[in-house]
Amino acid sequence: MLIKSFITSKKFQNFIATLIVFNGIILGLATSKTVVQEYSFVLTLIDNIIIAIFTIEIILRIYVHRLSFFKDPWSLFDFFVVAISLVPANEGLSILRVLRVLRLFRLLTVIPQMRTIIGALLGVIPGIASVSMVLMLFFYVFAIMATNLYAQTFPQWFGTLGQSMYTLFQVMTLESWSMGIARPIMEIHPYAWIFFVIYILIVTFIMVNLFIGLIVDAIFTIKGEQQEEKSKELKEIEELKKQVEELKQLLLKKRDYDNT
Amino acid sequence: MLIKSFITSKKFQNFIATLIVFNGIILGLATSKTVVQEYSFVLTLIDNIIIAIFTIEIILRIYVHRLSFFKDPWSLFDFFVVAISLVPANEGLSILRVLRVLRLFRLLTVIPQMRTIIGALLGVIPGIASVSMVLMLFFYVFAIMATNLYAQTFPQWFGTLGQSMYTLFQVMTLESWSMGIARPIMEIHPYAWIFFVIYILIVTFIMVNLFIGLIVDAIFTIKGEQQEEKSKELKEIEELKKQVEELKQLLLKKRDYDNT
Amino acid sequence: MLIKSFITSKKFQNFIATLIVFNGIILGLATSKTVVQEYSFVLTLIDNIIIAIFTIEIILRIYVHRLSFFKDPWSLFDFFVVAISLVPANEGLSILRVLRVLRLFRLLTVIPQMRTIIGALLGVIPGIASVSMVLMLFFYVFAIMATNLYAQTFPQWFGTLGQSMYTLFQVMTLESWSMGIARPIMEIHPYAWIFFVIYILIVTFIMVNLFIGLIVDAIFTIKGEQQEEKSKELKEIEELKKQVEELKQLLLKKRDYDNT
Amino acid sequence: MLIKSFITSKKFQNFIATLIVFNGIILGLATSKTVVQEYSFVLTLIDNIIIAIFTIEIILRIYVHRLSFFKDPWSLFDFFVVAISLVPANEGLSILRVLRVLRLFRLLTVIPQMRTIIGALLGVIPGIASVSMVLMLFFYVFAIMATNLYAQTFPQWFGTLGQSMYTLFQVMTLESWSMGIARPIMEIHPYAWIFFVIYILIVTFIMVNLFIGLIVDAIFTIKGEQQEEKSKELKEIEELKKQVEELKQLLLKKRDYDNT
Repeated sequence: MLIKSFITSKKFQNFIATLIVFNGIILGLATSKTVVQEYSFVLTLIDNIIIAIFTIEIILRIYVHRLSFFKDPWSLFDFFVVAISLVPANEGLSILRVLRVLRLFRLLTVIPQMRTIIGALLGVIPGIASVSMVLMLFFYVFAIMATNLYAQTFPQWFGTLGQSMYTLFQVMTLESWSMGIARPIMEIHPYAWIFFVIYILIVTFIMVNLFIGLIVDAIFTIKGEQQEEKSKELKEIEELKKQVEELKQLLLKKRDYDNT
Repeated sequence: MLIKSFITSKKFQNFIATLIVFNGIILGLATSKTVVQEYSFVLTLIDNIIIAIFTIEIILRIYVHRLSFFKDPWSLFDFFVVAISLVPANEGLSILRVLRVLRLFRLLTVIPQMRTIIGALLGVIPGIASVSMVLMLFFYVFAIMATNLYAQTFPQWFGTLGQSMYTLFQVMTLESWSMGIARPIMEIHPYAWIFFVIYILIVTFIMVNLFIGLIVDAIFTIKGEQQEEKSKELKEIEELKKQVEELKQLLLKKRDYDNT
Repeated sequence: MLIKSFITSKKFQNFIATLIVFNGIILGLATSKTVVQEYSFVLTLIDNIIIAIFTIEIILRIYVHRLSFFKDPWSLFDFFVVAISLVPANEGLSILRVLRVLRLFRLLTVIPQMRTIIGALLGVIPGIASVSMVLMLFFYVFAIMATNLYAQTFPQWFGTLGQSMYTLFQVMTLESWSMGIARPIMEIHPYAWIFFVIYILIVTFIMVNLFIGLIVDAIFTIKGEQQEEKSKELKEIEELKKQVEELKQLLLKKRDYDNT
Repeated sequence: MLIKSFITSKKFQNFIATLIVFNGIILGLATSKTVVQEYSFVLTLIDNIIIAIFTIEIILRIYVHRLSFFKDPWSLFDFFVVAISLVPANEGLSILRVLRVLRLFRLLTVIPQMRTIIGALLGVIPGIASVSMVLMLFFYVFAIMATNLYAQTFPQWFGTLGQSMYTLFQVMTLESWSMGIARPIMEIHPYAWIFFVIYILIVTFIMVNLFIGLIVDAIFTIKGEQQEEKSKELKEIEELKKQVEELKQLLLKKRDYDNT
């Protein structure tokens, strides 16, 4: 119980947050060759201490929350990025050394406001999932077509399905799509512009709609709240009606009574 | 009747959807030269079987729905993409081989949710049709002007009306418009910047308005629903007024009666 | 009177619209060197006939509307583009030949729906005028600074104030701003990135706000209409209150009467 | 008191505004080498006179407003830009000469409407501060990763943390990200596309959400006003209810009275 109140205390969380920021500065400094040459030992030492503290923190949290620790996605993320730092990075796994920087994203999981923002950002995804799938289908079909059409003549861009997908992603961002890609192709395949213009029109059209979908979703959320307010008004008016009806009944009864 | 219930059954539709996904994987694999060299026979066989199933499905649907099959745009699309796959692709019609991949878009027509999305995407078009026409008029007029101005000096970009349209489409996407197109032209025609800056300002201005039009349309749809809610409220208040009026009449009559 | 009813008739306007479309096709064909070589005489003849008809139309409209013709901006535009076509284009005024294509924009003034769209597009401008002025001030100040900083070392981009403005316009569209402009400059002025990054952040920030201003304006227009609806509701409720008040007075009077 | 009414008078402010515009023209002309060579003396003289007037204005304002002058951010800005103009610019401080142009931004502080716009633009910032911080964290983490990954092989782009940040800013604007940066890197690091595609997807996703946040904020402001209107309606209905209740009490009492 003591441990729990300790690791969930505001103070401890602030300490961890400060540590992550400090770790960020250390990792930033470690990108400089001159700094590393002079202070290699100090930097490694500090980094190891920080990793040690993080490891202890994670162990304490697992001890406190037990299995429910592994059900919380934020905790899993913390576990994952700390675990990466503990795996020894040899030649074959040099990518792990790079992924250690992901540890800094713990700032997003440790500060509650940041969690809210990340939650809001991720909460947007379901609303665009279905349109994104349509976009991906178009993307895939155009990539197959591009490979079939240009793999022979332009293997550097469309040699394999993967290369085609990368090139079409580039075209989607409109980067050098014409001067860099479409015009050279058009010198051999004069009608290639049909492919690229249609692709760009469709893909930007879908992306614009995806974007508008997000805006409309946001407005709908607001509208939902307004609706609630509205139904409150309607309820008030209906209550009023009932009262007036009662009044009428009172008057009618009275008239009948008077008439008798 | 039996055939109808069979081809409209959820199970059959799921089977077709699965088949399309499977066909997508096959067509994706067929883009790889090494895979084709080794498994050419298997891939062709699977593809032919899938096409055969699709053909039978379309024939059954035509048999069931008769003429109304050809009135449904989704069905027409299915018919069109399957028909393409059946035309033998010889040298002169090699483009047909490429268009066979369009078959994968049947995924959009077979899954009801996808149909809804495509319907929503297409439903946006009428709202932007008129502004798009203005955009196209500007596009056409600027293309004629560009051809008249630069066809002699820069035939690779503005040699024909078609080339000018392609180049202006590129400029519209802002790709290499200055370093790639406008600056080289300005070395010969020093005032070419007037043409390009005005073109970009007008075209982006129209596109921004087109985009805002889409957003406002979406908001108007929501507003329409709110309006309905509102009129319900107004109706309630009016009914209330009538009742109060009745009450008043009752009281007035009673007073007259009492006074007599 | 007869002339007025003639030139304002739907039929005549359709005839003019058709003529403009036909003129558009002729002007499009006239961009092709081979077509011009073969049919030069026919094209010129048709073009001259169309100009003649347009000229007569404008004269008739001036005759009918007199001075009020020159007060209508649409009419002035028609007058202007037809007048350009009548000025003989010699060597020194070859730009006039190019501007003749502007005649096709008469399609926007002749079709009422197009007028509405153009009106809506232009109606957006006042709402963004003040923010645009702020944008222009930033643009001007940054252009002066860029000229002072880089005129010596990069005269091709920042040699004069005009050149700086063009280059900064290019940077504003984000076209080749880094690889094409900023990186070469940074090789001589290592701190040039400060200038370009600040410029891009400020300019895109203002443009984003300009865009949001347009959306909010559109929403405000809708809100204005909703407000009207709302005030109608409020009025109804107030009327209701008055009636209830009257009822109360009636009852009170009656009680007093009964009590006497 | 006299000085206060003088410097806060509309006339004086218009005079200062005119002077700034005039100063803008002078500073614009001073970018031209030929103009400077011919009229160097006149330009310097005018510029010095304008600075003198600005200095006197600031002194008068400090004299009038005393300490509260330094509490107003607009005044501080005025003070700062005029002070820059007074510092003698020698070789080492040639940047000061460039910053003198900032003086023209006084147009924004002197015209009240401009102040409102700048206020509105700055007022948007708090609403995007938290999402911007998330964006900056991603930016920083990706910059460290890029430096670790590519500093050895591509020192011109990712040599130091600062260079990586600049390059990733360029990639964020999508300028030459693929043809200029990612493709050359992919020739040595074949999996670099993973880094760039993920970076672009995350960064554009956050920026889109930032933008939508701004739109929703604007809509919420409008909604807030509507809410007020709504609560007015609710209040009216509640008052009405009270009155009807009173009516009922009146009738009930009367009945009791009659019955007795």
